[in-house]
Amino acid sequence: MTVRAAVAGASGYAGGELLRLLLAHPHIEIGALTGHSNAGQALGGLQPHLAPLAGRILEPTTADVLAGHDVVFLALPHGQSAAVAEQLGPDVLVVDMGADFRLQNAADWDRYYGSEHAGTWPYGLPELPGARAALEGSKRIAVPGCYPTAVSLALFPAYADGLAEPDAVIVAASGTSGAGKALKPHLLGAEVMGNMTPYGVGGGHRHTPEMIQNLSAVAGARVGVSFTPTLAPMPRGILATCSAYAKTGVTPEAVRAAYEKAYADEPFVRLLPEGQWPATAAVYGSNAVQIQVAYDAEANRIIAISAIDNLTKGTAGGAVQSMNLALGLPEDTGLSTIGVAP
Amino acid sequence: MTVRAAVAGASGYAGGELLRLLLAHPHIEIGALTGHSNAGQALGGLQPHLAPLAGRILEPTTADVLAGHDVVFLALPHGQSAAVAEQLGPDVLVVDMGADFRLQNAADWDRYYGSEHAGTWPYGLPELPGARAALEGSKRIAVPGCYPTAVSLALFPAYADGLAEPDAVIVAASGTSGAGKALKPHLLGAEVMGNMTPYGVGGGHRHTPEMIQNLSAVAGARVGVSFTPTLAPMPRGILATCSAYAKTGVTPEAVRAAYEKAYADEPFVRLLPEGQWPATAAVYGSNAVQIQVAYDAEANRIIAISAIDNLTKGTAGGAVQSMNLALGLPEDTGLSTIGVAP
Amino acid sequence: MTVRAAVAGASGYAGGELLRLLLAHPHIEIGALTGHSNAGQALGGLQPHLAPLAGRILEPTTADVLAGHDVVFLALPHGQSAAVAEQLGPDVLVVDMGADFRLQNAADWDRYYGSEHAGTWPYGLPELPGARAALEGSKRIAVPGCYPTAVSLALFPAYADGLAEPDAVIVAASGTSGAGKALKPHLLGAEVMGNMTPYGVGGGHRHTPEMIQNLSAVAGARVGVSFTPTLAPMPRGILATCSAYAKTGVTPEAVRAAYEKAYADEPFVRLLPEGQWPATAAVYGSNAVQIQVAYDAEANRIIAISAIDNLTKGTAGGAVQSMNLALGLPEDTGLSTIGVAP
Amino acid sequence: MTVRAAVAGASGYAGGELLRLLLAHPHIEIGALTGHSNAGQALGGLQPHLAPLAGRILEPTTADVLAGHDVVFLALPHGQSAAVAEQLGPDVLVVDMGADFRLQNAADWDRYYGSEHAGTWPYGLPELPGARAALEGSKRIAVPGCYPTAVSLALFPAYADGLAEPDAVIVAASGTSGAGKALKPHLLGAEVMGNMTPYGVGGGHRHTPEMIQNLSAVAGARVGVSFTPTLAPMPRGILATCSAYAKTGVTPEAVRAAYEKAYADEPFVRLLPEGQWPATAAVYGSNAVQIQVAYDAEANRIIAISAIDNLTKGTAGGAVQSMNLALGLPEDTGLSTIGVAP
Repeated sequence: MTVRAAVAGASGYAGGELLRLLLAHPHIEIGALTGHSNAGQALGGLQPHLAPLAGRILEPTTADVLAGHDVVFLALPHGQSAAVAEQLGPDVLVVDMGADFRLQNAADWDRYYGSEHAGTWPYGLPELPGARAALEGSKRIAVPGCYPTAVSLALFPAYADGLAEPDAVIVAASGTSGAGKALKPHLLGAEVMGNMTPYGVGGGHRHTPEMIQNLSAVAGARVGVSFTPTLAPMPRGILATCSAYAKTGVTPEAVRAAYEKAYADEPFVRLLPEGQWPATAAVYGSNAVQIQVAYDAEANRIIAISAIDNLTKGTAGGAVQSMNLALGLPEDTGLSTIGVAP
Repeated sequence: MTVRAAVAGASGYAGGELLRLLLAHPHIEIGALTGHSNAGQALGGLQPHLAPLAGRILEPTTADVLAGHDVVFLALPHGQSAAVAEQLGPDVLVVDMGADFRLQNAADWDRYYGSEHAGTWPYGLPELPGARAALEGSKRIAVPGCYPTAVSLALFPAYADGLAEPDAVIVAASGTSGAGKALKPHLLGAEVMGNMTPYGVGGGHRHTPEMIQNLSAVAGARVGVSFTPTLAPMPRGILATCSAYAKTGVTPEAVRAAYEKAYADEPFVRLLPEGQWPATAAVYGSNAVQIQVAYDAEANRIIAISAIDNLTKGTAGGAVQSMNLALGLPEDTGLSTIGVAP
Repeated sequence: MTVRAAVAGASGYAGGELLRLLLAHPHIEIGALTGHSNAGQALGGLQPHLAPLAGRILEPTTADVLAGHDVVFLALPHGQSAAVAEQLGPDVLVVDMGADFRLQNAADWDRYYGSEHAGTWPYGLPELPGARAALEGSKRIAVPGCYPTAVSLALFPAYADGLAEPDAVIVAASGTSGAGKALKPHLLGAEVMGNMTPYGVGGGHRHTPEMIQNLSAVAGARVGVSFTPTLAPMPRGILATCSAYAKTGVTPEAVRAAYEKAYADEPFVRLLPEGQWPATAAVYGSNAVQIQVAYDAEANRIIAISAIDNLTKGTAGGAVQSMNLALGLPEDTGLSTIGVAP
Repeated sequence: MTVRAAVAGASGYAGGELLRLLLAHPHIEIGALTGHSNAGQALGGLQPHLAPLAGRILEPTTADVLAGHDVVFLALPHGQSAAVAEQLGPDVLVVDMGADFRLQNAADWDRYYGSEHAGTWPYGLPELPGARAALEGSKRIAVPGCYPTAVSLALFPAYADGLAEPDAVIVAASGTSGAGKALKPHLLGAEVMGNMTPYGVGGGHRHTPEMIQNLSAVAGARVGVSFTPTLAPMPRGILATCSAYAKTGVTPEAVRAAYEKAYADEPFVRLLPEGQWPATAAVYGSNAVQIQVAYDAEANRIIAISAIDNLTKGTAGGAVQSMNLALGLPEDTGLSTIGVAP
């Protein structure tokens, strides 16, 4: 089986990571690569780590260029995916790595993005209850945000088993590739090295409604989220520290059991042995998720912590995993749980 | 006025930072410097950044060596300070940079350190209500832990004004110098670069009871703390993200006013303009504290974030600040609020 | 074809990287894993990035444990490989990742290592003239040092074509994993971040005679080397800046042609397009080598610069590449030229 | 004595570092601060580490704004300083931190900058033979480039004593603040962390003629330079590895003696004890220079290595040091040799 894939937005970090993974995928043939301001340039100067594609020239992002592929990945600024997808027709598998089709609630979209809601596509986080069924055979996939991936996987088992009160406090640290290749002063190397700083504090981050959506669906009731993202001095990785009050009568054993049950058969999620805590370095460049959970009896809180690579499981790896499901391939085809460390 | 100071434990990170500050202090004459396994070695090889002291030889940490100074700083492993202090007599100003005399409650000490409680000394965080009075003229000072410094300053104004419920959730990131010069595999450069990882999760960190002590004193009732420290890939700095439910009727204006009142006259604490958030790089090498606070109406939480340099305001700078008070010097003598950035 | 491989020294950085690659190798079955002080421990706590091997228990490094494998990799302190290899017998492929069998000249060994010379095995740098023939079908392989790999590949084409005077000046920067997991103060994260510092200056580094050996063999006359290694604040990577006087009459075109000829058919070496320079980030985690060369007419020097990942092409990837040749497999089996960036 | 100083270009890295130092200078009163695109903004958002200046508003860079100060520092793009200086008049001390007045040879300027040569001002590297006399009482100062500072100090003693052949090979690593706050993709944090890469290879870097000028003046004959700069994953610091063939008959003792003589009375340069090598972390944020030198008998090369902070001694600290001389103040007023480490 050979699947021909195009990537719109191949010069950015998400597009580059996707190509890194697609190059290792046994069933993918890489077709058109497009860019915006970089159209006409060779990929070798833009993504020098992708040696096999060094000679490829970026084309403009048009329906003509993207036509004729089995799969089209969209790594575009939000708001642009709907128009492109429409032109590609219903038979092409379109995987949107942007935000456009993640939210179910148009009011949420309006509040956080301020434009018209494009719709909702099957949500590409297969580990969530019910998600696989919607992805299998689908022609449309909305790839989750990187923070919602880390946070939803850390917390959903506690909500699935009714162990946590519906009010989560989340502080997450992300490597700076999460902000993309945008040329902003605060993303310069001299600014980020040696620096930890928060942003989007107080519910302002656009990934907040996505977390609420995922956790509420599992809990069967609205779960509120206090989310504080921070920028960490590293290229990649998210460490999400999540906690919530435990419901009355919760025991450490019940908490452990909920997570063991949720992740017993998941190919990419590893619930660590008790006493070992997640580390972003351990999942560097891999599609793996490390999770640990503890019950703090004194504070009466369940504390769940996850580590992912924001570009792999958090973006491009998650996209490939869901693509595999949509294409009927084994879910882990072309993906690895082995990190590049140290 | 010339004050002769000795430093016990001069080869570690806390001792080195203290010497960096004392070298810039106009009233300090640096006397004996002691070490343990490094006794007999020149400081130039151990602390190559302290050029003016390069030829100084470390002496063993004995009462004889430390005698005859006006001030003795102790940067020793916990459990060792009481014996040394006793031998120095009541007229010498002893500044303990370790944990021995921070806690008021012997049971807390026993639980977290497992040895006999040495006692309680005036607590060297002058910004806390009532703290200055206890430090002025004192001959004994217990320098706070680095995390409790960052956390207490971030949260106490909310408790002082009765705005927050007595249950705080804290996630803090620290540079690796916070772990000291201990030779442990997880502190190797190849392990920490590119890595974020938590430790001491679930209430296990020894700084937890110190935070509870500080916040409870201000609140007038027990404040519980859920504290998760994380190790960040940077040499210095703490970013503490702290939050608590707001009490009924709290407004953003009331929150802002509480912090403005608390820090209007503090020489080292800067409540940032609204919209600007603390950054550890901005306080690198300085005694400054950056603080910002927000009220998240949707989550009904007060979110207070602070940035300090763990070695300066978090350890050695805090020690010098309290020493100044004890000696009757202007509190900011020899200290700076200017960070080394970028 | 299934090849059963054992790894002696599986808890270190070289051993960990080797296992990362062997896990992706289609013909390798991972057999015994041994350690020294870590024997009896599970690999999951020592190499948390190697998820599929988390449950494996390290065995002691004995001939009994290593017997019965087709390939045995030795990642041991120097001086220990000869005894182990002898016990394994002549039919087992033994790949020594240490220094013991790299040098041809016993006097060099004696001078730099101060012990008895164990002998010389086929040298595992297939790109060097004549190297492949010696590796094909061999039962013994000496894996090169990381610096000699980067330096020899940067410079040998200039010497092979008689373009450079026999006196090279080399300054190389290495990530700190190159120093291994040794618990030394100068390797602590707080010391290496933000720091560049040289070591082994003035010919003292043990990799110097290996560079001289490789370049002299190509040049057909002794090539002297002035080698200065520096420690850079990154986990992985070597950037080697190498230069030598050009011989009379050398032209930029001749220099370019020599490198194009040398690397036209090499699967892992990429001579970059003119104007683009090597970057360690571009080869992160890959077996690729990036090379660029220029002729500085004013200084009359050929300047050749290479970037490798010290743990992959510089150690474990080079070992697998040579193993493939020894086993008669395609040389690039299980290896990649795609870096993990950003 | 109070000196009123203006800073043109206060929002960049050079301007920010200068302000950090001027704030600690006992005789300086900080006057007008100007910017270009940032004019009208408060400094607090642009340089958040300069707490005492947070409320200062940047003014446009005009002669009117800069008039009425005793000293005017220019941290402007090259080509702009001459016009500003002319308008300020001959009685104002003008310290140009750009390149405009460093080179003596108009042809060099033309070749490397491609515009008209503005002239030559007294060169602000007091440690060079004869430099102090030209700076004392001067009303114009050309602050050296950061690389020429590190390289000239590392090598000039060897040339002053006639020990080295006139052909130097230099490889230097710089922190990314050396490239300024320019918004270029290769300076993004995600690109520079974990990455070492060269640039301006083959004599192309604009600092090359400045090095040649300095070393040639000392040697009394033209010294050629092969200079390769590299970008290192750290915010600050330059490590310059410099070497040259030793002249016939040179001994290690003669080399050591030359450096001891050159730096015996220099307040900011420290020739390290034999066996200890420079480290950029040891001079972080300080005006100190660490130097070590060795004679490699086998390669017959003198290897001299220096470490500076590119923003302090390499730019703003050097500027203040020269200003002190020009104003008749003790040369080390307001400057420190103590680094911020770890």
